[in-house]
Amino acid sequence: MSKTASNETRKIRYAVVGAGNIAQVAVLPAFKNAAENSELVALVSGDPEKLAALGERYGVAQRGGYDELEDVLGRARADAVYIALPNTMHREYTERAAAAGVHVLCEKPMAMTEEDCEAMIRATKDRGVKLMIAYRLHFEEANLQAVEIARSGKLGEVRAFTSLFTQVVRPGDIRTRSDEGGGALFDLGVYCVNAARYLFREEPSEVLATSLRIDERRAKDVDETTAAILRFPSGAVAQFTVSQGLASVSSFRLAGTEGNLRVEPAFDYTADIKHYLTVGGKTEEKTFKKRDQFAPELVYFSRCILEDREPEPSGLEGLADVRVMLAIQSSAASGRVEAIPPLKLEQRPDMGQNIKKPAVAAPEPVKAPSPSEE
Amino acid sequence: MSKTASNETRKIRYAVVGAGNIAQVAVLPAFKNAAENSELVALVSGDPEKLAALGERYGVAQRGGYDELEDVLGRARADAVYIALPNTMHREYTERAAAAGVHVLCEKPMAMTEEDCEAMIRATKDRGVKLMIAYRLHFEEANLQAVEIARSGKLGEVRAFTSLFTQVVRPGDIRTRSDEGGGALFDLGVYCVNAARYLFREEPSEVLATSLRIDERRAKDVDETTAAILRFPSGAVAQFTVSQGLASVSSFRLAGTEGNLRVEPAFDYTADIKHYLTVGGKTEEKTFKKRDQFAPELVYFSRCILEDREPEPSGLEGLADVRVMLAIQSSAASGRVEAIPPLKLEQRPDMGQNIKKPAVAAPEPVKAPSPSEE
Repeated sequence: MSKTASNETRKIRYAVVGAGNIAQVAVLPAFKNAAENSELVALVSGDPEKLAALGERYGVAQRGGYDELEDVLGRARADAVYIALPNTMHREYTERAAAAGVHVLCEKPMAMTEEDCEAMIRATKDRGVKLMIAYRLHFEEANLQAVEIARSGKLGEVRAFTSLFTQVVRPGDIRTRSDEGGGALFDLGVYCVNAARYLFREEPSEVLATSLRIDERRAKDVDETTAAILRFPSGAVAQFTVSQGLASVSSFRLAGTEGNLRVEPAFDYTADIKHYLTVGGKTEEKTFKKRDQFAPELVYFSRCILEDREPEPSGLEGLADVRVMLAIQSSAASGRVEAIPPLKLEQRPDMGQNIKKPAVAAPEPVKAPSPSEE
Repeated sequence: MSKTASNETRKIRYAVVGAGNIAQVAVLPAFKNAAENSELVALVSGDPEKLAALGERYGVAQRGGYDELEDVLGRARADAVYIALPNTMHREYTERAAAAGVHVLCEKPMAMTEEDCEAMIRATKDRGVKLMIAYRLHFEEANLQAVEIARSGKLGEVRAFTSLFTQVVRPGDIRTRSDEGGGALFDLGVYCVNAARYLFREEPSEVLATSLRIDERRAKDVDETTAAILRFPSGAVAQFTVSQGLASVSSFRLAGTEGNLRVEPAFDYTADIKHYLTVGGKTEEKTFKKRDQFAPELVYFSRCILEDREPEPSGLEGLADVRVMLAIQSSAASGRVEAIPPLKLEQRPDMGQNIKKPAVAAPEPVKAPSPSEE
C-alpha cells in the first residue's frame, strides 16, 4: 500500500489467486468497475498458459505459480488477495497471505471444516489483516431489498423460507469431487443457508437433512442432491433442495403471515433477478437488471481496508454457514436432527451495503470451462 | 338403485353427509354438473337449521341428523354417500354406510390412523360396496397434465419435488383442533404428499420432518406448520412446507434433469391453475381455467358403481397418504428418519381420468364460514 497517498486516491492492490472459471469470467473483469479504489496487480495460478494469456489480457506483470505466492505478493506490493481456489485450499492460502501481511477476500464457502474456518479467522486476526468472505449477494440490490421487505413487516411475520437451487454440473468439474471441496451442499447449499440466515437474521438451532447421489458423473464421491430443513429459535423454518444433477432452477421464497416474496432467479450473476411480491392476493413483479456483482465486493473490501472497518461478510459469517452445512452433513449421515450451538453475529447485510456497478461481458475463459452443462 | 333402468339412464342417488363449508360451497352445487349419472337425494347434518335451509335450496326432501343416517339412506333409497365430515368421523360413517349397503365417496384425508383406514377398506369390501377417497385433483386437467409431462420425458428424469402450501386458518376452525382431525399436515400436507406420489408414481420409503406451532389461535393442539422431506426408492426426493398460519401460497415444482414444471396455484378449486414449464431455459405458461372439481368426482364415482369398476383413488390410495403423514408425525416427534414399509398400488391417476365441468358459483354458506381468513 502506498504510504504517501491519501485515502481518497489510494487504491488497494489485489493479487487474484486461482484462475478457474469464476476468476476468469467474473473476478478479473470486475476490476474495471472497481477502479475507484481497487487495482489488479498480480495473478497466481498453477497453469503457466493461463498466467501468460490472462497476464497479457489484463496487463498484469506480476504473476507466478502457487509456490511463488509470497514472492509475487512482495514484487507486486499487493495489499490484498482475492482467493478463488478450490474450497479445500482456502485455509492454506489465507494463512500464507496473512503471514505475508496481506488482507484476504476469500471465496465462499469459507472452508470444508470449522477448524479451517477458525484457523483462517485466527491467522488474519493475529497478523492484523482483514478477512472477508466473498458473499456477492450481500451487495446485490434484489437480495438486499428482500432483506428490507422481510424487515418492513409488509409480509407480516416471516416464518418460512423455501428454496430450490440446481444446475447440471459438467462431468469432471471440481464440484464432482470431495478432494476439491465439491458437492451440491457446499457449492449451492451455501447460498440457501446464507439467504435463510440473512432473511431471518438469526442462526438456525437445528437441522435435518438427506443427501443422495444417482449419477456418478455429476457426483463422484460427494452429494449430488441434498434436501434440508433448518429450524430457527424464533420458530421460523427454512427448507431447501440443491442438486448438481438437475436442470437450472435458482429460486427462493419467503412466506409471512400477510404475504410472500418469491425471488427467481435469485442467486445468479449472469441474469436479471426478479421479485414477485404478493400481499393481499395481488402480485407485483420487479426486475433488477443484471449487474456486476464482483466489483461491489472489491469496492467494499477496499473501503474496509482503507477505513479500517470490519467487513460485514466476515470470517464469522463464513463460519456460520459452514457449521450449518456440516450439521446438515451430519444429519444426512445420522438420520437424526442435529443441534447447532448458538453463535452471536454482530453484523448482518442490509441496504446500506447496496453497491451498483454495470454488468460486464464475460470474456472467453482460458482452459476453464463453465461448471454447468447448460 | 333402480334395478329396472338401464346403465345409460340410471343415476346414482347420493346422500351428502356433513354440511360444513366444503359440502356447501362445492359438493352440493356440483350435482348440477353431475346430472348425467348422479343425483342428490338426501342430506345428513347435525344442524336442523342447515338441513332446512339447504334442503330447501336444493329441493332435497330426505334429510336428518347423524343418528338417523340409516333411516335417511333407506327413505331416500340412496346408492351412495359423499362423506364431508371431520376427518375423525370418516371411519364411523363409512362403516355405517357400508353396513347399510351404500357406496362410499369419502373426503380426504381418509382418516387419522392406519387402523381406521384399514377398517374402512375392510367394511366396504366385506359389504361389496365401492370406496373412493375424494381426491379432486385426480380428475383435474392441470394436475393430470403435470403427470403426463413428468412421464413424457420432457423434463428428463424427474427427481425433485418441492411444494409450499399455506393459508391463514380462521381461529376456531376445526383445523385448529386435534379432536376433529385438524392440523396443517393432515389438511394441507395431504395434497403435497399425494402430488409427490402421483408425479413420481411410487411410494416414499423414508421421511424426515419437523412440526411447530407459534400461534395458538391457528393451532390449538395440532401442528401449525410442518416441513417434511420424502425419499423415494428411485432416488427422487420431495420436500414441502405446509402451514395454517401463513398467507396463502399454493405451489409445487417438479424438477428434472432437462427442465422443470412449476404449478401455481396448484391445489385450488377457486382459481385458475397455471403451469410454468421450463425446458432449455425457455418458460411456457399455460392457464387452466377454473372448473368445477367436485362434479367430476361424482361423475367418475357413479361410473365406477354403474360399471362395477374399482375407483382409482381407492381406499388404498387414501391409506397410502395417511401412512406417509403418520410417518411424518413420527419423525417430527422422534427427530429421526422414519422408514415406511413398501406398498403396492395397482392404479395411479392419468389423463384418462380428466373430466371437465364448468365452474359453479359458490352459494353463500349457511352457518359454515370459510376455513381461511383471506
